[in-house]
Amino acid sequence: MSKLTDLPKRILIGRALRSDRLGETLLPKRVALPVFASDPLSSVAYAPGEVLIVLSLAGLSAYHFSPWIALAVVVLMFTVVASYRQNVRAYPSGGGDYEVATTNLGPRAGLTVASALLVDYVLTVAVSVSAGVENLGSAVPFVIENKTLCAVGAIVLLALMNLRGVRESGKLFAVPTYLFVAGVFAMILWGGFRSLVLGDTMHAPTAEFEIKPEHQGLAGFALVFLLLRAFSSGCAALTGVEAISNGVPAFRKPKSRNAATTLALMGLLAVTMFCGIIALAMATDVKMAENPAKDLIRDGVPVGEGFTQDPVIAQVAEAVFGHGSFLFMVLAAATALVLFLAANTAYNGFPLLGSILAQDRYLPRQLHTRGDRLAFSNGIVLLAGAAVLLVWIYGADTTHLIQLYIVGVFVSFTLSQTGMVRHWNRLLAAERDPARRRHMVRSRAINAFGAFFTGLVLVVVLATKFTHGAWVALLGMVIFYGTMTAIRKHYDRVAAEIAADDASPDESARPSRVHAIVLVSKLHRPTLRALAYAQLIRADQLEALSISVDPAETKALREDWERHGVNVPLKILDSPYREVTRPVIEYVKGLRRRSPRDVVSVYIPEYVVGHWYEHLLHNQSALRLKGRLLFTPGVMVTSVPYQLQSSEAAKKRARKRADWSAPGSVRRGPVERRHKEPNRKG
Amino acid sequence: MSKLTDLPKRILIGRALRSDRLGETLLPKRVALPVFASDPLSSVAYAPGEVLIVLSLAGLSAYHFSPWIALAVVVLMFTVVASYRQNVRAYPSGGGDYEVATTNLGPRAGLTVASALLVDYVLTVAVSVSAGVENLGSAVPFVIENKTLCAVGAIVLLALMNLRGVRESGKLFAVPTYLFVAGVFAMILWGGFRSLVLGDTMHAPTAEFEIKPEHQGLAGFALVFLLLRAFSSGCAALTGVEAISNGVPAFRKPKSRNAATTLALMGLLAVTMFCGIIALAMATDVKMAENPAKDLIRDGVPVGEGFTQDPVIAQVAEAVFGHGSFLFMVLAAATALVLFLAANTAYNGFPLLGSILAQDRYLPRQLHTRGDRLAFSNGIVLLAGAAVLLVWIYGADTTHLIQLYIVGVFVSFTLSQTGMVRHWNRLLAAERDPARRRHMVRSRAINAFGAFFTGLVLVVVLATKFTHGAWVALLGMVIFYGTMTAIRKHYDRVAAEIAADDASPDESARPSRVHAIVLVSKLHRPTLRALAYAQLIRADQLEALSISVDPAETKALREDWERHGVNVPLKILDSPYREVTRPVIEYVKGLRRRSPRDVVSVYIPEYVVGHWYEHLLHNQSALRLKGRLLFTPGVMVTSVPYQLQSSEAAKKRARKRADWSAPGSVRRGPVERRHKEPNRKG
Repeated sequence: MSKLTDLPKRILIGRALRSDRLGETLLPKRVALPVFASDPLSSVAYAPGEVLIVLSLAGLSAYHFSPWIALAVVVLMFTVVASYRQNVRAYPSGGGDYEVATTNLGPRAGLTVASALLVDYVLTVAVSVSAGVENLGSAVPFVIENKTLCAVGAIVLLALMNLRGVRESGKLFAVPTYLFVAGVFAMILWGGFRSLVLGDTMHAPTAEFEIKPEHQGLAGFALVFLLLRAFSSGCAALTGVEAISNGVPAFRKPKSRNAATTLALMGLLAVTMFCGIIALAMATDVKMAENPAKDLIRDGVPVGEGFTQDPVIAQVAEAVFGHGSFLFMVLAAATALVLFLAANTAYNGFPLLGSILAQDRYLPRQLHTRGDRLAFSNGIVLLAGAAVLLVWIYGADTTHLIQLYIVGVFVSFTLSQTGMVRHWNRLLAAERDPARRRHMVRSRAINAFGAFFTGLVLVVVLATKFTHGAWVALLGMVIFYGTMTAIRKHYDRVAAEIAADDASPDESARPSRVHAIVLVSKLHRPTLRALAYAQLIRADQLEALSISVDPAETKALREDWERHGVNVPLKILDSPYREVTRPVIEYVKGLRRRSPRDVVSVYIPEYVVGHWYEHLLHNQSALRLKGRLLFTPGVMVTSVPYQLQSSEAAKKRARKRADWSAPGSVRRGPVERRHKEPNRKG
Repeated sequence: MSKLTDLPKRILIGRALRSDRLGETLLPKRVALPVFASDPLSSVAYAPGEVLIVLSLAGLSAYHFSPWIALAVVVLMFTVVASYRQNVRAYPSGGGDYEVATTNLGPRAGLTVASALLVDYVLTVAVSVSAGVENLGSAVPFVIENKTLCAVGAIVLLALMNLRGVRESGKLFAVPTYLFVAGVFAMILWGGFRSLVLGDTMHAPTAEFEIKPEHQGLAGFALVFLLLRAFSSGCAALTGVEAISNGVPAFRKPKSRNAATTLALMGLLAVTMFCGIIALAMATDVKMAENPAKDLIRDGVPVGEGFTQDPVIAQVAEAVFGHGSFLFMVLAAATALVLFLAANTAYNGFPLLGSILAQDRYLPRQLHTRGDRLAFSNGIVLLAGAAVLLVWIYGADTTHLIQLYIVGVFVSFTLSQTGMVRHWNRLLAAERDPARRRHMVRSRAINAFGAFFTGLVLVVVLATKFTHGAWVALLGMVIFYGTMTAIRKHYDRVAAEIAADDASPDESARPSRVHAIVLVSKLHRPTLRALAYAQLIRADQLEALSISVDPAETKALREDWERHGVNVPLKILDSPYREVTRPVIEYVKGLRRRSPRDVVSVYIPEYVVGHWYEHLLHNQSALRLKGRLLFTPGVMVTSVPYQLQSSEAAKKRARKRADWSAPGSVRRGPVERRHKEPNRKG
């Protein structure tokens, strides 16, 4: 059956590359940094611009608040990094925020975190790809002219790559990430040098523009609210910080310490780049507006629909390096690349989180087994579909999409940090050693402050962005939460239904005898094999059963039976209406009625074929019959396969598929033992 | 698995109506006539118009040829009816043209007939529905303004009705068909009375129009060619005549004679109505044109795009009964209804022919078993899809669609009649009784003339219509022919591969022992049941196998195992990468390597659930594992079902589905024994 659904996939995606089995390769810090940091680092490509856009609503004068907002983001970043360094040390198993929240705050909090993260993965794809397309568009006009199309194309391309099972490799991440970091630093240093030492006046392409404020002369509460909104948008720089806490097992030893160091390094790089870009934007007089066509004024006239507002990083690069210069192009390409990589991390993280949720039975169990390609594929298709939908609805506009973003991350931050406070409280209750107690109290203080601060930001984000789109993200969370709760309830109900009663080690009526039936249509090799196998099991009774739908065929069967001297009695049931299923079912039910304690064992010869279209030509009646037989109590159904020559093709395909390695394996690391939270049922 | 694909169907189509089992009801002639004649009778609703449209290409003067064309159609109709009366007597088994051609001319001729008929079923739907919409549109303007949409809607509606398993009933056919026949006869009689007795001058709505001929002053060969084309279009009145030859078993006894009488009656009705309508069209000065907007001239000006050309039957009814009169409305409704019924006959005939072809292994075998809903569904969906495509492409324009029509029917007529000639030759070679020989010689003469005449018409149809669209029909036939040949070849190849070698009654290495494995994940009721059943079969070796993907779960399993005192050894395989399939496959392969003559019997506990979404939550790993195991030689795989409470729902559904009766059963009759053609392999 799965072959059928396989076909379109195979046509589109091709066969999986043969890749080596997941080796015992652990990540050194210099590789771990780009693997985990492409998401948070890449967000400096759009976060500064979003801050300026919100400020511009109050007019140009509000731009002088931007350093203060940058400062607030820096403080927040340090808080979050400091908090997660505690997480990484306390939970080195890679369960991340979901595990921390579930263990310390209970399964509902854990599920809330999971829903929030799933939504945020979707938005990471949508936002990063949209921003990537905008950055690429600053160098290649075609891209920006077909923004939505290019963004959708990029999402689909990433999905196909991940479906094919492209292996994450350190190199893949290292080159663009380091190139991007180096480019931004070069820009900041060269820009600072030109401005402060050479005394050059650099001009962004929008330097001469005026901004028409949407709200003239904002003050008091309204101004504060606007500043908070700008801060919320700046917080986009923090997304992805939590990813390292899922990836501790992938680090070299000492795992926790290396992860903590990498985390600190990542935070430092991110804030430096964020602040540097804001400073350069101020120095080069970048102007950004939410509706550039209307609100950006050139020589007293709005710039109109034809104008394309380039991202801040591109405008600054143009001012510092010069329009169309080599370095400008390199930085634009590196920015776009690192943004696509950031989107790619979501493709790895989404099915990975799904597999953890599956272990706790919030998602179908088969997602749990690694290397289950189908499960990963479903996750990837779901993620890509949702991201395409969002990109389509919002026209691949980063400014609009960013309104939905961050909600999930801060829900996750807040619950995780609150959970950590509980964690320390629990440990402190048992710990007596003063030195270790001091250490724990310090950690608790950091996490408590983290919980308070991220909670505050969550409130700010919700208050300032709810009507602008955050409700969509919340709705998404509710849908995920509801679905996963329903799945868990189903599993629990089934588990209760099938639980082995301790009193009686077996079911009430122990079966006593086996009545075996071999289904026969003609006497060919598959039938002979099924007969031979069925004879081996020494049932109490064995007979062959054939449904006569055609007198000539039945006659031929009887003759063959005698000619071959098959020593199994052949029973033939008439079916005047040429049905196959019904007479068999009725016969089996009759046997069961006569001797209710007997088990009926039905042997069905089955062809094993190699191509999906052959499936349409064989086994269909057998499949349907089997489906009906399974509903009949006291029956077991045995498929006796006969491998046709063409099955070799499918065998090879299956072997290749088994060698496929799931995306995201590098960051997950080879250790598979999750920390067990106390409330998990066995 | 089938449950998954079931869902969208169920939402759209609803559950099947519970209908009584196909009873032993045979059709009396008065019911058989409307059941089989709705197709040929309904074609008089468009055939006369198509004749006039072709003639109008040569201008109004060409209209005086129309009685001659009508005469030619009448002669052809009598020939075909006379010929098929021979078929019905010689082949009372209901195999129809396919059987006659296969038996007498060989399988290739048979397959050609089958391909031709399949294509013509598609066109019956497209043409009848388009004509139905046009007739309905003469009374309800909205319908004609949204012609394509309404036609597609009607096709889809018919498909849904047939998918739901609406039972054909005599009444369903009788009321509209007799209403239509009565209406047309009333119109002819009242029109004749008004014209001949009262001396009224009746005017069709287009009576005052002029026609601008596309070809001025055609003469000689060109004129003959045009007349032949008009005749070809008129031949549409003959489609469906062959249907009775498939339906002989449905008649009351004496079947053949009753069928022959019904056939004669049908021919008589059809030609009378056809000629009557042509005569009335002449009397009321109906004007028809291929491009009415351009070629119909009112007061010296073309009528333009806004003009809707009503069908001839509607125009005549308007002239005879008066515009908007009650009788006019009734006739329009009856005409539309009988045309939709005609389309419906294709929905019954298409899967029926498919099931006969499946018996000869030209189509997947499972189509052969009656009551196989899935098979019928696939046929219906294929038919509806192809018809929608044609209607869409040709804008539901009867005049365009009719160009594709008839090719198939006349291929079928010609081959069938040729086959009949061979049939009589064969019988005559053996027959000595002079009276019966005389009878046979007479029959042969009729069939020979039929073969000659229909062959001639086929040549005319192909010559006059090939470039106008008949090539599409031929292409369709080639596609059907090629596909069916390929399927048959596949079956033959497999049959050769699996044929039991007569020398060695069994396979070379007879298996000696059974090594049974019960797959276990937890110790719950399904597992206990599987263990109990596996113990019953007394294998040479029995062990339980569990794949450890989680140490805690494995520990719990071991403890449960001891607590329950299960007396089967438990083997646990480690799977550090949380795979399930690979370790099992490798273990089984290892067993086979060590003792190649052993058979490995794998028992898999399986949950039986009631809803499609539950399928997503259970058995997925088991299914995949089973799929892989089947490729391993020397293995048999047993599903031990455990029926969850929810499976009751599916059981009820399956029961309902089993009670569903296939569309087309009334006309097929209860007798299932097909005449065996000599070249069929057993």
